[in-house]
Amino acid sequence: MVTDGEFADSDVQRARRDTPGVANRVHLNNAGAALMPAVVVQTLIEHVEREAAIGGYEAHAEAADRVEGVYDSLARLVGGHRDEIAVADSATLAWQRLFYSLPLSAGDRILTTTAEFASNYVSYLQAMRTKGVTVETIPDDASGALDPAALESMIDERVKLISITWVPTNGGLRNPAAAVGRIARRHGIPYLLDACQAVGQMPIDVEALGCTMLTATGRKFLRAPRGTGFLYVAQDFLRDLEPAFIDLYGAPYSAPGGYQLRPDARRFETWETNYSTRLALGAAAEYAMSWGPEQIERRCTQLAEQLRTGLQQLSGVTVRDLGEHQSAIITFSHDAVPAQQVKEALARSGINASVTPPTSTPLDAAARNLPDLVRLSPHYYNTTEEIAVALRALEGTTA
Amino acid sequence: MVTDGEFADSDVQRARRDTPGVANRVHLNNAGAALMPAVVVQTLIEHVEREAAIGGYEAHAEAADRVEGVYDSLARLVGGHRDEIAVADSATLAWQRLFYSLPLSAGDRILTTTAEFASNYVSYLQAMRTKGVTVETIPDDASGALDPAALESMIDERVKLISITWVPTNGGLRNPAAAVGRIARRHGIPYLLDACQAVGQMPIDVEALGCTMLTATGRKFLRAPRGTGFLYVAQDFLRDLEPAFIDLYGAPYSAPGGYQLRPDARRFETWETNYSTRLALGAAAEYAMSWGPEQIERRCTQLAEQLRTGLQQLSGVTVRDLGEHQSAIITFSHDAVPAQQVKEALARSGINASVTPPTSTPLDAAARNLPDLVRLSPHYYNTTEEIAVALRALEGTTA
Repeated sequence: MVTDGEFADSDVQRARRDTPGVANRVHLNNAGAALMPAVVVQTLIEHVEREAAIGGYEAHAEAADRVEGVYDSLARLVGGHRDEIAVADSATLAWQRLFYSLPLSAGDRILTTTAEFASNYVSYLQAMRTKGVTVETIPDDASGALDPAALESMIDERVKLISITWVPTNGGLRNPAAAVGRIARRHGIPYLLDACQAVGQMPIDVEALGCTMLTATGRKFLRAPRGTGFLYVAQDFLRDLEPAFIDLYGAPYSAPGGYQLRPDARRFETWETNYSTRLALGAAAEYAMSWGPEQIERRCTQLAEQLRTGLQQLSGVTVRDLGEHQSAIITFSHDAVPAQQVKEALARSGINASVTPPTSTPLDAAARNLPDLVRLSPHYYNTTEEIAVALRALEGTTA
Repeated sequence: MVTDGEFADSDVQRARRDTPGVANRVHLNNAGAALMPAVVVQTLIEHVEREAAIGGYEAHAEAADRVEGVYDSLARLVGGHRDEIAVADSATLAWQRLFYSLPLSAGDRILTTTAEFASNYVSYLQAMRTKGVTVETIPDDASGALDPAALESMIDERVKLISITWVPTNGGLRNPAAAVGRIARRHGIPYLLDACQAVGQMPIDVEALGCTMLTATGRKFLRAPRGTGFLYVAQDFLRDLEPAFIDLYGAPYSAPGGYQLRPDARRFETWETNYSTRLALGAAAEYAMSWGPEQIERRCTQLAEQLRTGLQQLSGVTVRDLGEHQSAIITFSHDAVPAQQVKEALARSGINASVTPPTSTPLDAAARNLPDLVRLSPHYYNTTEEIAVALRALEGTTA
C-alpha cells in the first residue's frame, strides 16, 4: 500500500522495478494490455513449467488450493462472495455467458449507453433479431456521460435489462455506474455492468455499484495476462439463471436423463481450462490490492490530467474526450495526420499507443462523426517524465 | 518423420530428449493432458516474456504472421482449408460454439453414441428442454462400437444432426467415424465429430471422415498447453451458420444497426484471446506432424497393446475396454481396490494415471454398470520399460 494515499517517487520506482517492460518502452497502451508485473509473469511461467515437468493434471492437483485462492482474491477485488465469481478465458466470454443466459423475450427492452462497446452492441442487435427485444440508448447529459435522470424516465415494466459499459474503450468517460445501480435496484431490473476498463484502474465494489452482474478482463489495467477474465453475479439473481451453454463442470449429469446446475457462479465455467493464466490472474489481483485501488486511481487521474492538458496545447490536436470526471483513457485526433500514422511515429520513439476505430463504439462514433482516434492510457507505473516524452514526440510528429 | 514408419529406439530416445517431464514421471495420463515437448513450452514462454517486455498488443503485432501460420498448421493437421479453422480456448468452447449455433427446433432428432462424453450429452439434454429436440442413442455392434448399419436404419427426414465422440474418454473404443461420415453425407445430415482424444493420437482427415464439423483439444495427445482447442467447419455448411454468440471480431458492426458475419470460420472466435497459447498450439501441431500421425498411431497402438495384455494377466484386474480396433486409452477396475486408491499408489511410484468416473460417459456407465475406472494412456514417447514398470507397480498395489 502507498503511504498517505499518494504515490511518492520511491513508490513509482518500486512499481517500475517490478515491471521489466518499462526498460524497453514508454507504455501508454494500458487500455489495450498493460505491462505485466514480474510476479504475474513468474506465476504463469512457473505453473507452465510445472505442467511440463510433472503433467498438466498433476500440476493442477498440486496447485488446487492456490487455484481456489483466486476466487478469494477476485471477490476481495470487486466485493461480493467467492461463490459469486466465475473465471473465464476473456471478458468477452464472461459477458457472453451472462448476456445470452438472460431470459429475454419479445417486447422486452434493453437500455444501454451511447458509448457502448461494439461487442456488446452487436449481441444486443442479435437478440433483437432472434428474441424480438428492443434496444434503446439512454440519453447523455451535457458532459457526454449517461444521464441517470434520463434513465429514470425511461423505466417501465418492459425494461428487463440495463446493460452498460462503465468506462468506455475510448472517449475518456466514466459513466455514473453507481447512480445507474440505484435506479436498477429501486425498480428491480437486472443490471449488467461491463467493467473491463475500470478493473485495476479504480476501486470496484459491487455492493456500492448496485450491479446484478459485472464482467471484467485481466489484461488491461489489472495487468494480468491476455486470455483472462471473470464475472460476478449476485447470489439471489444467480439462483434462477441457467447458463445458455453448459458442460459437465457447470451442470453435472444427474441420472437419469438430467443435469444439475452447480449452486455457485461457476455454473458459468467449463471443466477444461487454463490454470497457469488463472493463477496469474489471481496474482495480478493481489498485486493491484497491494498498491491500493484508491491510490492507483488517484495516480492514474494525475497522469491522465497531465497528458490531456499537454495534448490540448499541441497545435492541430483535438482531444475527443467527454465527461466531467474522466478516466485514464485519453483519445485525440490530428487535423492533418491520420491516427495510424501518429501511432507508428510514436512507436519509432519507443512509445506504445493504440488506434481506436469508429467501429469500437459505433453509436458514439456516429453521433460525434469520429474518425480513427489515437488512444493513450497511462498507468500508475508510468512517470511524469514519460508523459512529457510522449508529448514532445507528438509535437515532433504532428508539427 | 520416423524412418520406415516405425519408431526405432533412437527415435524414442529423441522424443524423450524433447520432453523434459520424462525425467520425473512415468506419464501414462496422455488422455488427461500429455507432457508438452520443449518446443511447445518454449514457444509459449517466449511469447509471454515478449508481452512482458514490450506490451501485449505490441508482441502480437510482431508475431502476427506466426499467429496466421497457426491456421495453416491446424488445417494441415486435420485436412480442410485454413478458412475452415477457428481457434478456441478449449475444445468445450469450440464444441459449444458449434452445437449451440445449429438451427435445431422442435421435433428434430439428434443421434449420438452410447459412449458420448457427458459434456456433450448434458448439452443435448438442455436442447431437449429448450428447443424440443429428441436425443437418441445409436445402438452398438457386438464389439461395443457404434453400429453403422443401426445408424443407417434410424435415418429419416427428422434427423437433423449426428453428433458423436470418435474416441471416448474411457473404454478403449474408436468409433467408426468415417463409416458414420459416409452415411451422413449420403443423407445430407450435419455431422459434428468430437475428436478430442483422437487428435495427435492418429491421422485425421476431415475429407475422409466426411464430417461437417470437428472439434479438438490441444492438451491431450496433441501435447499443446491447457487452454487450447480448435474447430473445423466445412465451408459450404459454414455459409449459413450464424454463431449463437457474437462479438465485434466474428461479427463486426456494420452501420446502421447491423452486423456482418466474417466469411471464414473465425466468425466463431472472439477478438480477445491468448496469443501465447495459440502459438504453442501451432507449435504442437507442427511437432506432431514432424513425427508423422501414422507413425504415432502405430507406436501408441503397440504400447497400448502391451499394457492391455499385461493388465489382463493381473489377478483381480478387469480391463473394461470395448471395440475391435482399440485406442491408446486403457481402462480397468480391480475387484478389491477402489480406482482412486490405485491411482494414488501409482503416483507414489512416480506413475501418472487418472480416474474416470461413471459421470464422464453416463450412458455407457449405466449400461455396463461401471464403477470408477483407472485410466492409463501411453503416448509415443513412453517406453516399453515404462509400461513394464507400471504393470509391476500395479501388481504390487493390487496384490
